[in-house]
Amino acid sequence: QMPRGNLETVHHRALVLAQIRRWLDSLKFREAFECMRKLRINLNLMYDHSPKVFLENIETFISQLKSINYINLFLTELKEEDTVSTMYPHPVSSPVQPQSSSGQKKVDLVCDALRSAMESMDPSKFCLSILTTHVKKTVPELEIALQKVHDLRENPPEAPGAVTAEEALKYLLFLVNVNDLYEHSLGTYDFDLVLMVAEKSQKDPKEYLPFLNMLKSLEPNYQRYTIDKHLRRYKKALHHLSKCGEEHFSEALQLVKEQKLYSEALRMYAANSAQYKALSCAYAEHLLEQQQAEQAGLLLWRCGEPVTALQAFASSSSWRNAICVAQQIPLPPDQLALLARDLAEKLIEQRRHSEAALLLDQYAKDCEEAILALITGAVWEEALRLIYMHNRQDITETNLKPALLEAVSTQTAFLGAQGATFTRHRMRLAAVREQKEKARLGMLDYDGPDCPDAELYSEASSVMTGTKYSQSNSRISSRSSKNRRKAERKKLSLKEGSPMEDRALMYALGELITTVDKMREEVHNLLKALVLFHFDKQAVKLQLAYEEALQMMEAAVPEVWPEGLQTHWSKLDRKQHHGFIPAAAE
Amino acid sequence: QMPRGNLETVHHRALVLAQIRRWLDSLKFREAFECMRKLRINLNLMYDHSPKVFLENIETFISQLKSINYINLFLTELKEEDTVSTMYPHPVSSPVQPQSSSGQKKVDLVCDALRSAMESMDPSKFCLSILTTHVKKTVPELEIALQKVHDLRENPPEAPGAVTAEEALKYLLFLVNVNDLYEHSLGTYDFDLVLMVAEKSQKDPKEYLPFLNMLKSLEPNYQRYTIDKHLRRYKKALHHLSKCGEEHFSEALQLVKEQKLYSEALRMYAANSAQYKALSCAYAEHLLEQQQAEQAGLLLWRCGEPVTALQAFASSSSWRNAICVAQQIPLPPDQLALLARDLAEKLIEQRRHSEAALLLDQYAKDCEEAILALITGAVWEEALRLIYMHNRQDITETNLKPALLEAVSTQTAFLGAQGATFTRHRMRLAAVREQKEKARLGMLDYDGPDCPDAELYSEASSVMTGTKYSQSNSRISSRSSKNRRKAERKKLSLKEGSPMEDRALMYALGELITTVDKMREEVHNLLKALVLFHFDKQAVKLQLAYEEALQMMEAAVPEVWPEGLQTHWSKLDRKQHHGFIPAAAE
Repeated sequence: QMPRGNLETVHHRALVLAQIRRWLDSLKFREAFECMRKLRINLNLMYDHSPKVFLENIETFISQLKSINYINLFLTELKEEDTVSTMYPHPVSSPVQPQSSSGQKKVDLVCDALRSAMESMDPSKFCLSILTTHVKKTVPELEIALQKVHDLRENPPEAPGAVTAEEALKYLLFLVNVNDLYEHSLGTYDFDLVLMVAEKSQKDPKEYLPFLNMLKSLEPNYQRYTIDKHLRRYKKALHHLSKCGEEHFSEALQLVKEQKLYSEALRMYAANSAQYKALSCAYAEHLLEQQQAEQAGLLLWRCGEPVTALQAFASSSSWRNAICVAQQIPLPPDQLALLARDLAEKLIEQRRHSEAALLLDQYAKDCEEAILALITGAVWEEALRLIYMHNRQDITETNLKPALLEAVSTQTAFLGAQGATFTRHRMRLAAVREQKEKARLGMLDYDGPDCPDAELYSEASSVMTGTKYSQSNSRISSRSSKNRRKAERKKLSLKEGSPMEDRALMYALGELITTVDKMREEVHNLLKALVLFHFDKQAVKLQLAYEEALQMMEAAVPEVWPEGLQTHWSKLDRKQHHGFIPAAAE
Repeated sequence: QMPRGNLETVHHRALVLAQIRRWLDSLKFREAFECMRKLRINLNLMYDHSPKVFLENIETFISQLKSINYINLFLTELKEEDTVSTMYPHPVSSPVQPQSSSGQKKVDLVCDALRSAMESMDPSKFCLSILTTHVKKTVPELEIALQKVHDLRENPPEAPGAVTAEEALKYLLFLVNVNDLYEHSLGTYDFDLVLMVAEKSQKDPKEYLPFLNMLKSLEPNYQRYTIDKHLRRYKKALHHLSKCGEEHFSEALQLVKEQKLYSEALRMYAANSAQYKALSCAYAEHLLEQQQAEQAGLLLWRCGEPVTALQAFASSSSWRNAICVAQQIPLPPDQLALLARDLAEKLIEQRRHSEAALLLDQYAKDCEEAILALITGAVWEEALRLIYMHNRQDITETNLKPALLEAVSTQTAFLGAQGATFTRHRMRLAAVREQKEKARLGMLDYDGPDCPDAELYSEASSVMTGTKYSQSNSRISSRSSKNRRKAERKKLSLKEGSPMEDRALMYALGELITTVDKMREEVHNLLKALVLFHFDKQAVKLQLAYEEALQMMEAAVPEVWPEGLQTHWSKLDRKQHHGFIPAAAE
């Protein structure tokens, strides 16, 4: 916007701005305004220069400007942009203006403040400016503006020279697209207003009159629904349609499904009504499609559809709810047992053995299957509890003890494998680092700009600062950073010679430590069961294997995560784990 | 050790060292040795200069030195210290010698290598040097040395000039304190050897003969036990005592208790023996004193002491084991019910409501109490399951629904309080930071060395680098760093004006986020229960409160943890939580 010119002009403008600032500071708004208008300086500066002063002296501003045209000019030029920080910065840095604490947008704030002032000063005189403040808001308040025009027509002002409805409407049409205004006038459900706008709009009466007449013939609520739907205001449409009685319910249900207005719809009908039930079923169907079967089940259950609710709960492994509904129906005992077995099977697939055992024991009445599920899931203590509860000590010999011994082998072998992988990764990491260090030293000797290892070097140094890696283990993290990390990890490849192999190795080593650390409780439970059954030798073996794995990893931490990289894997916490295994002679 | 002298001498010594290195490199050990001895250069250099060369040419070394005295001199001067890195560094840096990979200590390595070589060359000739290699080991092998002396006496060597037992013993007494040697001779249980040493020791025969005679009169195992105990070798003592038959068991038990040799003792007796049981009970008693009641219970149970085992399990809330033991005894039904109630009460105190409910339901046969426990613990789904299982829908109305509504109030109020504390801490943090920044800028203007705010400034900058704080949330951490952090945190005080107030506030804000984040599942479960019972309005209220709290905290993260401090609290992960609450008309 700055006029082209020589240095002198620029200098002149700086002087002008200084003068404007002085005027604004001394509340000489008129002088400032006229000067700015003449020199085409953005009028937003009147507010931006000092928002607080402007808002506190808004009546002075209005009285000084006086002219409706001036006020409208100012209003129409309003923008969110802060001209002090973009176009007219202060020559010397001054304390930063605090942002409006209300969080309201600048344009809305100024419009509302001006309107409130003008309405208390002289609503009739400032009529057009008041309409402008409605139109200029971030979300234009066209209905309110139209309503004011309509009021002018109903009660024409008596003051001489006051704005007529006609004039006001013309002004509005100058500010707003005629079709927008027509739509919004429809939205007021006021046919006088609609006709008034339509007449001014140069629309073809053959086009709009039949539509308006059709609307007029409708029952009021259905009329409003039709208008709302026409304007794509579906929530309002549903609200009006819901008042049109049962004969229109199928139309309402259709609307709800099309626009997914389930929550809103449920709020509009009584919970014990047939409509509420129909809506619940429709919502449940939708939720099932969205893979939210448990929530669908809750809706179906509470609206009195236990059979479909049962299906929904069963399909989402929401087994407690499924069983409750089944007992409410009530399912005959044999079918309940079958249901329990089905649910248990799914839970076992999800490694939820304790829950599966509860179903098998209490609902399928099959304690043997329940105990076997617990043994499969390594839930030793609970297995023993059921064994004693049902007096099935025979299972201890036939299944529990062999399973314990097998678990020792599995765990020991697993620990061995984890340890071996850890050692392999650790050695490879040392080799990769040495290679990169050599490349780096070689580069330093060269001191040339186009070294072939340049990329390798910058890679190595980025690992050494460790910032990227060190961020990848935070407990709470945003989706965006999560995705970023996911993408980053994808780049990490353990393939020998891959550019980020060292980082991939560090990540893999960290995962191995986590895995072994997480075995603590499982190992401890197994140890207790082994001791109980006099398998002291096996217990000692397992405890040693676990402690060795932990110690080996602990010892490697300073090497793998040297100072500066060590934000996350400091040493393992082994406090909770201490052996107590007694051993018996064979 | 360097002789005093002028520069010339020093220079001369450098030349000498160079010559010695050349000799060693060309395997001229004799020349090197004599020169080093003359100039009092530490003999360890012979090995340290090049361990690999030394070990590979150890026979050459022995044949060149030839003299037993020389070899003994070298052996007695052996130290763990690496003289190349401490006293005689290489003039130009040479590639670092890899450490002995076996992890064996240098002294032990050299002693074993020399002994093995001498024994294969001429054990008779090198007899005294061989003895020296035993004595010089990190843990002196005095028994072996004594045994060799004893062998010399039993089978005197026939070679002319060979070392006699007499001479060897004299030599040993020259190397080792006489009392040590006497004790170790006792430890061989060989009275000939003991007498031999005792005679040489100038000990009073009146003193040692009665003791030896007493020992001689004992049964062999009891004799060894007595000697082991005298030498404080308690494990060996126990081993020998365990072979002395049942009449000595009480003595053994006493020893086990005194020396806490429980695990070792259990290994020495058969698992079905009376002694094993007695030892188990003693061990259990010890574990109970160590607050390891569950482990005590396991030992008691498996050795056939169910009643005391039950007490141990009950006292440690190991309720599954307690119930199993009780059913094995078997406890009569009314007592079992009482036990279940007692256990449940303790579990409720520990907020383990689900487990308490299981006990009350299945063992105390009191489904009402069980359901109430679940309701108290906010375990809504499980409460409902028991309600349907026992057909007690009346409790839904009398207890479950009121509890749900109360939970909404509690949770909403709690979220409000957390939010308020968060905001208060956040504002205070901003104020503290501004204050510190001002102090810092003030200091920069001063540029004086003794600024009063210097400490404050360094504090602020240490926070801004953020290293200390960013390390305090790693998942796995060593005990030492844990303690360090604990100490650090103690220094953090939220008191206004405390020196690390900003860091304390950041820590407190982090804790608040964690607390609210952890409520996710509890809130979700409550929401599901509310929806089921048509409490849609309350559900919406709670969901909004929770989402607002999360959003508010999420929005504050960039301010509280600005770039560089943000390693841990990046944004909250809100993926798992999305509302679905439908609402019904009232």
